[in-house]
Amino acid sequence: MSELYIVGIGPGDRDDMTIRADRALGACDVIVGYGVYVDLVRDIYPGKEYLSTPMTREADRCRMAIELAREGKKVALVCSGDSGIYGMAGLVYEIRGEDKTPEVIVIPGLTAACSGAALLGAPLTHDFAVISLSDRLTPWETIEKRLECAAEGGFSIVLYNPASHGRPEHLKKACKILLKHIPGDRPCGVAEKIGREGEKRSFFTLKELSETDSVNMFCTVFIGNGATKMIGGGMVTPRGYRDV
Amino acid sequence: MSELYIVGIGPGDRDDMTIRADRALGACDVIVGYGVYVDLVRDIYPGKEYLSTPMTREADRCRMAIELAREGKKVALVCSGDSGIYGMAGLVYEIRGEDKTPEVIVIPGLTAACSGAALLGAPLTHDFAVISLSDRLTPWETIEKRLECAAEGGFSIVLYNPASHGRPEHLKKACKILLKHIPGDRPCGVAEKIGREGEKRSFFTLKELSETDSVNMFCTVFIGNGATKMIGGGMVTPRGYRDV
Repeated sequence: MSELYIVGIGPGDRDDMTIRADRALGACDVIVGYGVYVDLVRDIYPGKEYLSTPMTREADRCRMAIELAREGKKVALVCSGDSGIYGMAGLVYEIRGEDKTPEVIVIPGLTAACSGAALLGAPLTHDFAVISLSDRLTPWETIEKRLECAAEGGFSIVLYNPASHGRPEHLKKACKILLKHIPGDRPCGVAEKIGREGEKRSFFTLKELSETDSVNMFCTVFIGNGATKMIGGGMVTPRGYRDV
Repeated sequence: MSELYIVGIGPGDRDDMTIRADRALGACDVIVGYGVYVDLVRDIYPGKEYLSTPMTREADRCRMAIELAREGKKVALVCSGDSGIYGMAGLVYEIRGEDKTPEVIVIPGLTAACSGAALLGAPLTHDFAVISLSDRLTPWETIEKRLECAAEGGFSIVLYNPASHGRPEHLKKACKILLKHIPGDRPCGVAEKIGREGEKRSFFTLKELSETDSVNMFCTVFIGNGATKMIGGGMVTPRGYRDV
């Protein structure tokens, strides 16, 4: 029975991988992934065959991994963060279709909502919504609608892909929509290069966030809910315990 | 400088902990937590002092951990899943207040949204909302409003605490609200006792989910978005790649 491991490697540092993910990567013959993520693990697991495809060739990458597994190789397809949340697990299922070979084993990893929140304090102690601002695969109208609904529902909000070289204005546009529902003094946080060299956290009000140019493609953005506040240097969303 | 580690231990199996979490627990003197979670790690790290408080005494638990750290002990406060997402990190910040002692180090862990999704397939490959159905600390009206907004926004939805001994009807009430916006044939999945003995996954339509009595307090519930489908035995939310 051939097996294909879809491995979430977390934010970047080996220490933030799960023991299961570390063991799967150590045991495989071939590691397939996007160039940047393959480079994050290349030095940790020497002696493997490493294969990558460029940014927009995700389906080719999954096909390659499936084919190699069918040929009998032990293959791991690596994803940054989690393997499911905006990761490659879905695409592998789609491409494999109803053929049950290879067996697909999804090994989860720390997504930026978890690792970024830990860096900032505890902004996600209550209900939250995760929204990607990338419109490469999603119409911008859908993204706008979700921002509206998340704000109206009083969720804490996590924004993935808040900016990129091709889309520098997305975060500003998103903040403009959120400011229709959320006061400008709402606490926000930005986690940058989590667990990697250059890791950084910064805090803003929503108004300030709507005006800053400091948010780039290495950032994950957190917008608090109505109860979120800065406490002891961290961004904290109380859960509502009454005996504090 | 005294330090307090708030450690997310993931769903339950040591293999699903991060290397960082495993190392922190191995290095500490005292492990504090809710009884069930303390029992999950007690055999893995022998020779530690273990302390716990009952279910509704979360604030006491955090105070105990803070005090022990101030006395110079190396203390880890363990949380199931992630340490931030519905975890104790927020409460520790609240109780510590503006005093910066001890230093609080939040070590994230796999939350059930990640680990449960991996068990079911890939239901969270696109934007999603996480909602707890527990009304112990949140008015039920707030929960209803969030369910409405999440459904209207077309999010995949993850429900934490879908049922408990005291609240068996919460999931049925939630499904009734969702069914006002979402067709009854929408694919749903339930992940039970993830990573522990008795681990189980099951799939439903939203209509079936609204009628089942099989969901208990050890379950996490996943409701697909408009594109979610069953593929090759897994629940999959396509991201929208066009060259599949």
